[in-house]
Amino acid sequence: MSKPPLILSSLDVERIEGLLANMTSSEFAGKDILEGEIDRAEILAPEQIPPTVVTMNSTVRFLIVETGKEFALTLVYPRDQQGFDDRVSVFAPIGSALLGLSVGDEINWPAPGGRTMTVRVLEVLFQPERSGELHR
Amino acid sequence: MSKPPLILSSLDVERIEGLLANMTSSEFAGKDILEGEIDRAEILAPEQIPPTVVTMNSTVRFLIVETGKEFALTLVYPRDQQGFDDRVSVFAPIGSALLGLSVGDEINWPAPGGRTMTVRVLEVLFQPERSGELHR
Repeated sequence: MSKPPLILSSLDVERIEGLLANMTSSEFAGKDILEGEIDRAEILAPEQIPPTVVTMNSTVRFLIVETGKEFALTLVYPRDQQGFDDRVSVFAPIGSALLGLSVGDEINWPAPGGRTMTVRVLEVLFQPERSGELHR
Repeated sequence: MSKPPLILSSLDVERIEGLLANMTSSEFAGKDILEGEIDRAEILAPEQIPPTVVTMNSTVRFLIVETGKEFALTLVYPRDQQGFDDRVSVFAPIGSALLGLSVGDEINWPAPGGRTMTVRVLEVLFQPERSGELHR
């Protein structure tokens, strides 16, 4: 499968790699895949990140293509998930898939009955880097 | 897409429908799809559920086909998720996709970099109905 490299913030990568170093594959099913993606990512300084890229602590508006329904999620570190339904950990399967996506990208989510949903990134509602929060 | 109907416990369906009645699609992206699957499911009394089916509060052992790694998750109601990494809510995309699966079934999970992982149900380690906990 040929995919373009992800665009990641150097600060996000530093923090994510620090957390991954203390994790086993049984704690995070996508560990090996995420490590591989970081290795081939385009890593930029926080101030160089395009405003349409999903970075850590970004809030993203999505469309479910099949149903026309929209919703929003914020991509967080596990310690900040704290049971909030509108936050998703970067080490959950869905969170790890959101990191580095851009507006217009689509991914598939599993759905009941062996189905899949097509989820499209409509808008990055909040991105720390775009708001000048370069150390968040 | 033609898929076999899910096998669901009548008690699980009663509880899930009670919770769905108070939810909006913005709270649970797969609401419409889950309601449709319940409508076409094979609904059995708890004591008739085959021992290899994933029911509520079941603990399931999985294989990630691409990496050969195994892990386990317990499918719970949202009130029981409480931040445990090894529990997944039936109203999260991945949880909703697990309900009613059987040993040997495979589903796709989203993974970093726009990839997908193939996740196979290896074993139902614990199932309340099989253990005689018919009202759990």
